[in-house]
Amino acid sequence: MPEINIIPCEGGVCAAKGFRASGIHAGLRKNKSKRDVALIVADCECAAAGVYTTNKVFAAPVGVTRAHLKNGKARAAICNSGNANTCNSDGYDKANATCEALAGALGIDAQDVIVASTGVIGVPLPIEPILNGIPQLIEQLDASVEASNNAACAIMTTDTKKKEYSYELVIGGKTVHIGGICKGSGMIQPNMATMLCFITTDAAISSEMLQKALSDVIRDTFNMVSVDGDTSTNDMVTVLASGMAGNAEITAEGEDYDAFHAALKTICTSLCKSIAADGEGATKLIQCSVRNFSDTNGAKVLAKSVINSSLVKTAMFGADANWGRILCALGYAGIDIDVDKIDVKFQSRAGEILVCKDGRGVAFDEDVAKAILVRRHITIDIDMNVGSCDATAWGCDLSYEYVRINGDYRS
Amino acid sequence: MPEINIIPCEGGVCAAKGFRASGIHAGLRKNKSKRDVALIVADCECAAAGVYTTNKVFAAPVGVTRAHLKNGKARAAICNSGNANTCNSDGYDKANATCEALAGALGIDAQDVIVASTGVIGVPLPIEPILNGIPQLIEQLDASVEASNNAACAIMTTDTKKKEYSYELVIGGKTVHIGGICKGSGMIQPNMATMLCFITTDAAISSEMLQKALSDVIRDTFNMVSVDGDTSTNDMVTVLASGMAGNAEITAEGEDYDAFHAALKTICTSLCKSIAADGEGATKLIQCSVRNFSDTNGAKVLAKSVINSSLVKTAMFGADANWGRILCALGYAGIDIDVDKIDVKFQSRAGEILVCKDGRGVAFDEDVAKAILVRRHITIDIDMNVGSCDATAWGCDLSYEYVRINGDYRS
Repeated sequence: MPEINIIPCEGGVCAAKGFRASGIHAGLRKNKSKRDVALIVADCECAAAGVYTTNKVFAAPVGVTRAHLKNGKARAAICNSGNANTCNSDGYDKANATCEALAGALGIDAQDVIVASTGVIGVPLPIEPILNGIPQLIEQLDASVEASNNAACAIMTTDTKKKEYSYELVIGGKTVHIGGICKGSGMIQPNMATMLCFITTDAAISSEMLQKALSDVIRDTFNMVSVDGDTSTNDMVTVLASGMAGNAEITAEGEDYDAFHAALKTICTSLCKSIAADGEGATKLIQCSVRNFSDTNGAKVLAKSVINSSLVKTAMFGADANWGRILCALGYAGIDIDVDKIDVKFQSRAGEILVCKDGRGVAFDEDVAKAILVRRHITIDIDMNVGSCDATAWGCDLSYEYVRINGDYRS
Repeated sequence: MPEINIIPCEGGVCAAKGFRASGIHAGLRKNKSKRDVALIVADCECAAAGVYTTNKVFAAPVGVTRAHLKNGKARAAICNSGNANTCNSDGYDKANATCEALAGALGIDAQDVIVASTGVIGVPLPIEPILNGIPQLIEQLDASVEASNNAACAIMTTDTKKKEYSYELVIGGKTVHIGGICKGSGMIQPNMATMLCFITTDAAISSEMLQKALSDVIRDTFNMVSVDGDTSTNDMVTVLASGMAGNAEITAEGEDYDAFHAALKTICTSLCKSIAADGEGATKLIQCSVRNFSDTNGAKVLAKSVINSSLVKTAMFGADANWGRILCALGYAGIDIDVDKIDVKFQSRAGEILVCKDGRGVAFDEDVAKAILVRRHITIDIDMNVGSCDATAWGCDLSYEYVRINGDYRS
């Protein structure tokens, strides 16, 4: 396989040819400086793919978008923050009305609109601000860095940072761009989507291969992130592919598909790590790498069990090298493990320290461990020493701030 | 079935005839006013039963006790706090040495000793304080209220309150007592034992029926408690039955077994609610009742999913009637549910309020909801409206204090 060179570039969802974006304060949020509706529009019909929350209680916009993307095509995505449009009797009516109003204003088919919402559950969606905001959203559509930035900001809820990446690479001799924005900090847990993410690319790829790549990449990226173990009702990741890069359309597996897959995985990894690092109240990004296990799925379950443990999370918050909690979390993951072979290391920019060898504690310098664990990016490296399968999960520590944010989210 | 009258009485683990207890500061904890080793001794050989953590990483004392109770008999239980004796290469040696030293001093068989530990994982157990403390533990053995109290205090770790209950009832014309002490506040999660609990009774019951009753009762009590979703490596619940009440030995199902089962369930419910209420940093006991579901196991999974949700827990901490998070937690429990039939109420001593009907929000008075949710005992009442099976789970809110306690537990 030839080397695939994937380089960061500017532009977010506007990095790829054929996309414009905007984000405005339409009035769903009280704070007038907070943008609350985002729009992404493609210049042509795009191949489209999506993955959605596995929660049995799912938002009306999730249901509507899933139906719209069944044909593998779309041209625009609209998303509001401030209200989830979930568990409301008029949820579908309002999600459909939003699509119809936008489609009418853009002169496209309502079926080609992706609609998404995020915010509080069970409060009727105030649709007037969205409908009234559509002209302004369209007027402000632009392919600039700022336009993608505005869209990224408009989908934020308790996020403290906007989440936006873009990359370029060569596929079939053509420069291809892929960019994305996402949001999500609380209510994020493995097993599908975990938040809202909108990805655009100018790669030419069939909707079948696009869906295949997305479904595959999600398993190792967004599904391996957990902030609080809760799976939201509203999560979705969508990808729009305009084909404007001019590469020969990817319609089967092969070198070009592999390159696109690698690019999609790169951007999804970047975006999902930014979500973990910005977990509600998080002070640290925690990466848990489970290595040398007998099977990949088991390794994933183990890594997620550690990342999800409240006791591990609070220990990381306290920069406490309490590796016993890590073994404990491995032990209750429901996977057959050989405890006596497990080695555990903590790693960060400050270095690396072995704290557990063959399932037993080893003498280690607490000061060195503390110096490693006070850093903002920590890796918990777990060597199971029984096979060759690896998995990585991402999460964050559990802080006072998480409690404060969620103790009174609605007010 | 005749009415079973189960009345609270005094005495804890010394309420039942034939049991003495003690608890001393042996020196495992730095704070000299904190008792750290507990002893319970029976005057005669007892029928014994136990249930243990399902964690694949389990403490040496769990392995030793499980082996000792295989014959259904025991005479004494010794438990230290301050160190879990887990993930240490000399763990079994030390757990066995503790049993042998105690057995030698009491003149009983080491096989008849239950041994338990709780505290930090992966630090070698300092056994000298325990061995040196055995004479004092034996000297202080007493059947008084204070003696049980001392034992209850000695097994506490981050618990803020001792947990001790006792009841009496009539079985086969004889007054029978059952009492227990337990500890546990963090690292508590459904699926077995969830903490340390020692129960004594003077009922005459075969070890087979005792184990059967315990295994059955655990499923609806200790396994339905969750503080933080973590299942400890050290959990166990044991019961010793001295037979000294003089009832005809219970050797099969029937009226007497039912009465004993009811008493065991009563004490386990009291003890496990006290654990939930004293969850690390908890300010409230949360009870989640899932009613009228199609099957009991599904109802249990749903109730536990709600109790385990960090977002529900923080909402309860903030007295925020954020019922959307409850529906969300029901939705990701992995159980088939009919969202459109779900009703949700909040209940406390301050009253009751319906917040969700048929899976949709209803208008409710936020002030009334707040008044209900600021109380210390909250019930989340969920009517699934599809069957007749119920389940109850207990937990607590998630507070700043949980983070503080666990951010630096080892120091």
